[in-house]
Amino acid sequence: MYLEKVNSPADLKKLSIKELEKYAQEVRAYIIEVVNKNGGHLSSNLGAVDFTIALHYVFDCPKDKIIFDVGHQSYAHKIITGRRDEFKNLRMPGGITGFENMHESECDAFSTGHSSTSLSVGLGLARSRDLSKEKYDVISVIGDGALTGGMAYEALNDIGASQTKMIIILNDNTMSISKNVGAISTYLGKLRLSKRYKALKTTFRSGMDGMPIVGPSVVNVFERIKSWVKGQFWTNKMFEQFGIKYYGAFDGHNLRECIKMLMQIKKIQQPVILHLTTHKGNGLYEAEQNPEKYHGVEGKKELSKKYSEIVGEKLNEMIAKDEKVVCATAAMLSGTGLSVVHEKYPDRCYDVGIAEQHAVAMCAGLSAGGYKPYFAVYSSFLQRAYDQLLHDVCLNNLPVRFLIDRSGAIGADGVTHQGLYDISYLNSLPNMTVLSPANGEELARMMDWSLDFNGPLAIRYPKGYTLDGKEYVTEDPLRWEVVHNKSDNVYVLAVGNRMLDIAKNSLCVLVNARSVKPLDMYFLDKINKEGNLIITLEDGIVSGGFGESVLSALNAVGKVCRVVNLGFEGVCDDLSVSGAFDSNGLTAKNLDKIIQEHLKV
Amino acid sequence: MYLEKVNSPADLKKLSIKELEKYAQEVRAYIIEVVNKNGGHLSSNLGAVDFTIALHYVFDCPKDKIIFDVGHQSYAHKIITGRRDEFKNLRMPGGITGFENMHESECDAFSTGHSSTSLSVGLGLARSRDLSKEKYDVISVIGDGALTGGMAYEALNDIGASQTKMIIILNDNTMSISKNVGAISTYLGKLRLSKRYKALKTTFRSGMDGMPIVGPSVVNVFERIKSWVKGQFWTNKMFEQFGIKYYGAFDGHNLRECIKMLMQIKKIQQPVILHLTTHKGNGLYEAEQNPEKYHGVEGKKELSKKYSEIVGEKLNEMIAKDEKVVCATAAMLSGTGLSVVHEKYPDRCYDVGIAEQHAVAMCAGLSAGGYKPYFAVYSSFLQRAYDQLLHDVCLNNLPVRFLIDRSGAIGADGVTHQGLYDISYLNSLPNMTVLSPANGEELARMMDWSLDFNGPLAIRYPKGYTLDGKEYVTEDPLRWEVVHNKSDNVYVLAVGNRMLDIAKNSLCVLVNARSVKPLDMYFLDKINKEGNLIITLEDGIVSGGFGESVLSALNAVGKVCRVVNLGFEGVCDDLSVSGAFDSNGLTAKNLDKIIQEHLKV
Repeated sequence: MYLEKVNSPADLKKLSIKELEKYAQEVRAYIIEVVNKNGGHLSSNLGAVDFTIALHYVFDCPKDKIIFDVGHQSYAHKIITGRRDEFKNLRMPGGITGFENMHESECDAFSTGHSSTSLSVGLGLARSRDLSKEKYDVISVIGDGALTGGMAYEALNDIGASQTKMIIILNDNTMSISKNVGAISTYLGKLRLSKRYKALKTTFRSGMDGMPIVGPSVVNVFERIKSWVKGQFWTNKMFEQFGIKYYGAFDGHNLRECIKMLMQIKKIQQPVILHLTTHKGNGLYEAEQNPEKYHGVEGKKELSKKYSEIVGEKLNEMIAKDEKVVCATAAMLSGTGLSVVHEKYPDRCYDVGIAEQHAVAMCAGLSAGGYKPYFAVYSSFLQRAYDQLLHDVCLNNLPVRFLIDRSGAIGADGVTHQGLYDISYLNSLPNMTVLSPANGEELARMMDWSLDFNGPLAIRYPKGYTLDGKEYVTEDPLRWEVVHNKSDNVYVLAVGNRMLDIAKNSLCVLVNARSVKPLDMYFLDKINKEGNLIITLEDGIVSGGFGESVLSALNAVGKVCRVVNLGFEGVCDDLSVSGAFDSNGLTAKNLDKIIQEHLKV
Repeated sequence: MYLEKVNSPADLKKLSIKELEKYAQEVRAYIIEVVNKNGGHLSSNLGAVDFTIALHYVFDCPKDKIIFDVGHQSYAHKIITGRRDEFKNLRMPGGITGFENMHESECDAFSTGHSSTSLSVGLGLARSRDLSKEKYDVISVIGDGALTGGMAYEALNDIGASQTKMIIILNDNTMSISKNVGAISTYLGKLRLSKRYKALKTTFRSGMDGMPIVGPSVVNVFERIKSWVKGQFWTNKMFEQFGIKYYGAFDGHNLRECIKMLMQIKKIQQPVILHLTTHKGNGLYEAEQNPEKYHGVEGKKELSKKYSEIVGEKLNEMIAKDEKVVCATAAMLSGTGLSVVHEKYPDRCYDVGIAEQHAVAMCAGLSAGGYKPYFAVYSSFLQRAYDQLLHDVCLNNLPVRFLIDRSGAIGADGVTHQGLYDISYLNSLPNMTVLSPANGEELARMMDWSLDFNGPLAIRYPKGYTLDGKEYVTEDPLRWEVVHNKSDNVYVLAVGNRMLDIAKNSLCVLVNARSVKPLDMYFLDKINKEGNLIITLEDGIVSGGFGESVLSALNAVGKVCRVVNLGFEGVCDDLSVSGAFDSNGLTAKNLDKIIQEHLKV
């Protein structure tokens, strides 16, 4: 087993190409084993094993800086850079994270998680190196999907202008999470598929075989060949127009070729893109057949329905009934539950690519055009459209509806994917209404109700399955509702499914505070009495959150009751939801303790 | 005077080309007259007069939808669409706004203000039209500067894929606010300047002259000529690779040509870009010579120093002293005060284009590389980098320093430019420190202090001039300081220059609450006494703001004093700072009233 012999990139460099190829197989098998057990991103990682090994063969981590865009394809990188054994605890509480993380290893040059950041961060590192006259390489590994994100383009523009030495590996796996959309995807497809180009590529590559691997003349040879190539047919103008050298497309699973190309490209003293084609799920038959299903592999399954399933079904129903309903997703058809909508109503369901900013402003346009747009998006990804939420939707008071999935603690996806900030950033937006359903049924009811709602509206719900099927009676989503009544003077205002679940056995008046904004002031006024304790429970950051707005509203009308706000503080890097709740006092035990202390006073 | 005859786009259509040309001159003169009096964007508007007239000659507002990106170049549009007389009150309280605003006229298809939104919004409108099978045109007018914004690229990708009918006018004025940067700019420059291209363009155009203005064969002629052009030399592949037809570059000041081109392009049933070259400040000699100075023209000047001047001078000083200091701006060299830095230290001052997302993540990379980056940015534009603030800077606790200009009420630039949200969106970010200096001197001192600060740091200050030169004694910016002591039990915690100014004569203990986050808990604890009143004053939204965090902190430790939070609520569309303060109770009078009422009780 080579797997056990490689404890660092240095060990890797001692292996022959043949041995590296065997090592790659072992790494792949190891990844399949762990991900099947722990969950995680399977197919993208299997696709990245070969070129990751090539990268570590050619470059020197941690001196050289490799930034994996999104970072979910960095498993092989983690295994190579001294985390082979810890990898068994991938995405487990106390274990290593599923993304590149600078706090985890000095070999992780930066922390990634959201799409399209690697080029900007890479340029920052490259500029630091230039200013301090150091010598190291900066390599940004970016997928074709992440290239649809606007900030990647902003970075390409600056990188091209800077002309600083920087290597971009375009990991073109022919699909991101769902099928890539848009013109960029078509363009890359053309680059890949052109038969004439392929033929020439082969010539080009076998021509390279005869050249010395290291040598100053190489760049010139490249140049001459490229010029000739350019003259012949439609090529890679897009990147070159940014002032970035382009080489590709090459087979990202051919270790020998990858190593050779990387050694050449290392010599180039300006920005360069190496375009590698890879197959998601390479090495795993089933994953290769169905890469979307295996993009993120989950552990065990629960029995009830997922929120995202409810969203998909409901939207189909609404579109059938109301000709003005349309919906959008930013490359998350499957994750947000919109796949079934896109299948049934492809003209009413827009997948805009990894482009949340555009999605929100485009929905604002749809709304101005008289339509009823629903944007289904993960909480942490909607962060990228904060300005469009404010500038294009809320300032104009346009009825755009946000279906915010993965809100609250996220569990194994870790720190970058926490949906803990949405209440805080939505609360301060003028005209915005924020709802949090108590279960799947209430989500469906809120969606029905939202059809004729005449302003910006956000409905937030957590990842995964609804927790119970209890029917709540109050139909108006802007009114709160008592769930149980087990106290005279202690009120727990719980936001959403999980928080209601935490308090379900507590000796309190448990309230389904489904309307986060506006607050149910009628309800609040009633319970604002001396001797009363109000505890707010939210699956989000306290600062600027639901609890603080309750406190502020009571303060404004003359607060006489006591208020305790429970929620998250600081950075949450727990890899389980329950762990995150524990660390932040969001437990039945802590709740009961606070209640008991109040009753004693 | 044609100016007085044209009260609507319909009137415009009655004029001959010669008359339109005279009308254009009159519109230009009128714009110069009003802007010299009221302030506003002069040169960009002068550059846009001719093609705006052409647009209204060819299209029918409000049926057809014209979206002006940023919207600051829409003065001629306003004058043409029934707001000629109101234009006298441009940017004045109660007058019309300086941007396109859907609440101001049905001819304003959408509200704009921030860069790069017009393509997304336009696509949303075009999709609405297609779904409802209506017939109208959607025209997005976007400048070359706005094309460096990532969301424009996200939109181009989706527009190209959609293949819906949509017209993009690329208003290429060879400079945005400061000189354009980056590869896109170079690329456009090449398109413009290629002599061979120009020669061909002339042929192409004179060829067009002989053709009937309307006719189905025209597109085919276009196509054939374009194919031939493509075969010959390096052209406009970038747009065509997005799947968008490209025609240009044409002279945007030649009314006859513009009208002819627009009539042709109107026939094309897919997305098309018309590339027009214009001159900012066209028609005004002085503005043409110095367009950056005249980008935004201010009214009267005050005597003290601008905050932005202090920033520029201080950064130059810091760069001279500390080799690790670098700074960045997103196309706002002049507005943020960084011009002097860029002149003196071009290698240490990065202008990345209108690309705030990239700027923040790039600074995170510089910080990870051991540098001390300062990003100088307007408050409302930093909104676009909310995700990068959280994901790339704060979660990693990286010392990136944000110099946030134009925070608080903005005055004449109106609703989209209000810097009222920064405290709210910064407060909930983990690891973030937020400071607000009491004057220019304190800003300089905070910048000195920030050099060795080891986490994310935001320093926010308003537009324009510092209000007084009073020296504050406390050197630690994380501690608050008593400014005057005129009460035993009323405390006013004022954030920043303007709020201190409002309270300067009030009977209270006036406190310079320079550290917005963290709060000075030592100070707060001391004044948390029964019978005390604490009034918080902030130049920002109350929800999630400074006041609410004071209230929350006191609540957590057991509040016994009274707290009143003053600040902004809802949408602020006042066109003067004092008007905005009046509407939100941020006045000495209101403050004194609250104090008096408290003393009576």
